[in-house]
Amino acid sequence: MIPVHAGVGKNLKNAVEGNTMKIVIPGFSFNSISGGIKKNGKKDMGLLYSEVPAVVAGVFTQNWVKAAPVFLTHQNIQKGYIQAVLVNSGCANACTGKKGIDDAKRLSAETARILKISPDLIAVSSTGVIGEFLPVNKMSTQLPGLCHDLGEEKVEDFAQAIMTTDTVTKIAFRKKIIAGKKILIGGVAKGAGMINPLLATMLVFIVTNAAVLPRTLQSLLDEGVMRSLNQITIDGDTSTNDTVLLLANGRAENPPFSKKTAEKTGFKAMLFEVLAELAQKIVQDGEGATKVIEIKVKKAKSTEEAETIARSIAHSPLVKTAFYGEEVNWGRIIAAAGKTIFPLAFEKVDLFIEKIPLVKKGVNVAPHNEKQAQAILTKRNFTVTLVLNQGKREASILTTDLSPDYVTINAGYKS
Amino acid sequence: MIPVHAGVGKNLKNAVEGNTMKIVIPGFSFNSISGGIKKNGKKDMGLLYSEVPAVVAGVFTQNWVKAAPVFLTHQNIQKGYIQAVLVNSGCANACTGKKGIDDAKRLSAETARILKISPDLIAVSSTGVIGEFLPVNKMSTQLPGLCHDLGEEKVEDFAQAIMTTDTVTKIAFRKKIIAGKKILIGGVAKGAGMINPLLATMLVFIVTNAAVLPRTLQSLLDEGVMRSLNQITIDGDTSTNDTVLLLANGRAENPPFSKKTAEKTGFKAMLFEVLAELAQKIVQDGEGATKVIEIKVKKAKSTEEAETIARSIAHSPLVKTAFYGEEVNWGRIIAAAGKTIFPLAFEKVDLFIEKIPLVKKGVNVAPHNEKQAQAILTKRNFTVTLVLNQGKREASILTTDLSPDYVTINAGYKS
Repeated sequence: MIPVHAGVGKNLKNAVEGNTMKIVIPGFSFNSISGGIKKNGKKDMGLLYSEVPAVVAGVFTQNWVKAAPVFLTHQNIQKGYIQAVLVNSGCANACTGKKGIDDAKRLSAETARILKISPDLIAVSSTGVIGEFLPVNKMSTQLPGLCHDLGEEKVEDFAQAIMTTDTVTKIAFRKKIIAGKKILIGGVAKGAGMINPLLATMLVFIVTNAAVLPRTLQSLLDEGVMRSLNQITIDGDTSTNDTVLLLANGRAENPPFSKKTAEKTGFKAMLFEVLAELAQKIVQDGEGATKVIEIKVKKAKSTEEAETIARSIAHSPLVKTAFYGEEVNWGRIIAAAGKTIFPLAFEKVDLFIEKIPLVKKGVNVAPHNEKQAQAILTKRNFTVTLVLNQGKREASILTTDLSPDYVTINAGYKS
Repeated sequence: MIPVHAGVGKNLKNAVEGNTMKIVIPGFSFNSISGGIKKNGKKDMGLLYSEVPAVVAGVFTQNWVKAAPVFLTHQNIQKGYIQAVLVNSGCANACTGKKGIDDAKRLSAETARILKISPDLIAVSSTGVIGEFLPVNKMSTQLPGLCHDLGEEKVEDFAQAIMTTDTVTKIAFRKKIIAGKKILIGGVAKGAGMINPLLATMLVFIVTNAAVLPRTLQSLLDEGVMRSLNQITIDGDTSTNDTVLLLANGRAENPPFSKKTAEKTGFKAMLFEVLAELAQKIVQDGEGATKVIEIKVKKAKSTEEAETIARSIAHSPLVKTAFYGEEVNWGRIIAAAGKTIFPLAFEKVDLFIEKIPLVKKGVNVAPHNEKQAQAILTKRNFTVTLVLNQGKREASILTTDLSPDYVTINAGYKS
């Protein structure tokens, strides 16, 4: 399996530069406001609205502790359609028990009343500090303004409303003619910390004007997330609130993409590019990150083995601090690879940084290549490849280095 | 299972203060020198010598990648006796293939020749950078001096020779009359980084004048390590070189402790205290650590569940940075507890910092206790207790906070 993000570099040039370009997906509108949840007065409430009920697919956190909005949204998307997504940052509404669920329901109901749609067509999503209740009364007074000033071009505003420790908004956009119709896909994401494979404080909302059958949409999202958002890691921590939603409103009037149509392939490629670009942007904006590193493990006996070893390397604080320090300290990579449940035969192993070999069949060849390796380590992006020479499977994980800033950001996040 | 270290605070007062007290264990002598392996000229070679072959027990790293000295020492202790331990810091002699084994053997053989004992009575142990060869020729020239200036009182010198990023030597000592004999146990350790449950760059050497049957000695060490050194974690990384050796020379002339003697209980208690104290000292000197935190998980369905959840909390960078920031951010603790394979029923959970409740049966009570909790967080040592209310098992892990210094230390370690 070659992850989509491996090829994302080429596509980045075609993507939205700097997020300032106006993106419009027909039939979808957006808005955001400062609702007073964040102490710093920044935007913290957002609304995504579809003119018509849109086919929806969703992927949620695998943490056992799921936030109230995750419960409610998971329930509401079961019927296959939603029409609006109400989001907030500054408070996760997680670990808030029955009151948390009631709060989320009340905000949904009030939003539905203002938008004149059924409450079960609303998805809700929250991010921020765990264990605190949403300031529901304060938020309620903001809902009319949020609902009435929706605009087709306000994607950037919406993206701002979901930021926590993110330093930039994360937006991806693709367009393509498929079956004679202009198909558009736009997505926004938040990330920064608590980013881990298997999802983690990651909110991603993607909309398209394509018509797609509900089951096809869900299976495309499942596969796409597995190959993109599930292959990035910043700190190995997972969140209570992760949510990825994909809405398709059918405004392109294409014959709905389904398992059987050839057109689906083109749509799938676009969707995967959007997911890959958002995943890349999340990692690039990882808390305190100065580098994005791809960890590839090749020639493993199984994909599980390759993934487990790649994640062990990607999560190792010693490996990540060595990347930050720009040091050719490959022993830490090997030690991290050797601590999983999968036996590691060091005498068979090759290790590369980009194409520069550091270890060949268990022999240290780094001293011959120290200068070239050192030069690569000073770059912002590079790939580390561990070849196990034990089988045919491979896996890849995108990760960051670990800087003193990560600690500073997270030591002072709540206050 | 109540871990031994839970009670170590009381015992610390009886222990060696500041490591400056002269410790003598009859029949054992020590030495150390600057052999030129470390670039900074600090001590990097040490020797521990027993007048007579001593009964030996050992525990080694569980990393699949094992350093050359680990192979050799594991082999040499199989017969149950050794007489000397040659250690070095500055170079791990790990990932060095056949040459690494040959180098370790050559140093053993030369040491044996000088000491006039059999080479298979020598254990070797190394710590430092992975992937580099030992400067064997340089080290050889130092061996005569190292072997000839042995002294009974040079425990502190020996402890210095195994330090890497450690800031202080770690020594523990206990004495007690058992069966009318004065029994002494002394131990030294190095730790600092790459410290993880299941052992990790941790070298521990313990000597006693007691007589103990080989099998009894090994089973006591296994149990003691499980309850002490395996229950501490700094960064979740494990090393290629971890070694714990326990030597018993029988000079006390007690009837050998065996499974059947009542006296064994007294010796066991002493040994466990020494191990617990060394574990505590390793954590206290964790790289960049400003705090030592005990994570207790209680009322779990199984010990495995309790341990897995405790380790997940103890390894979480977000939890550790919150500790560093002295923030009551209990959501991160819950999120880390919820990401393991064991289901977490948040609505059943109680969470305490010391005796201050933050969560009771899934309800956030922290706001009522914020001041008291905040006061505890500013301390250097405290306990976090997560009560699952699902069963009767428990586990405990000692860990550190994560400070910007951890990153700085590890980013610049090699250079």
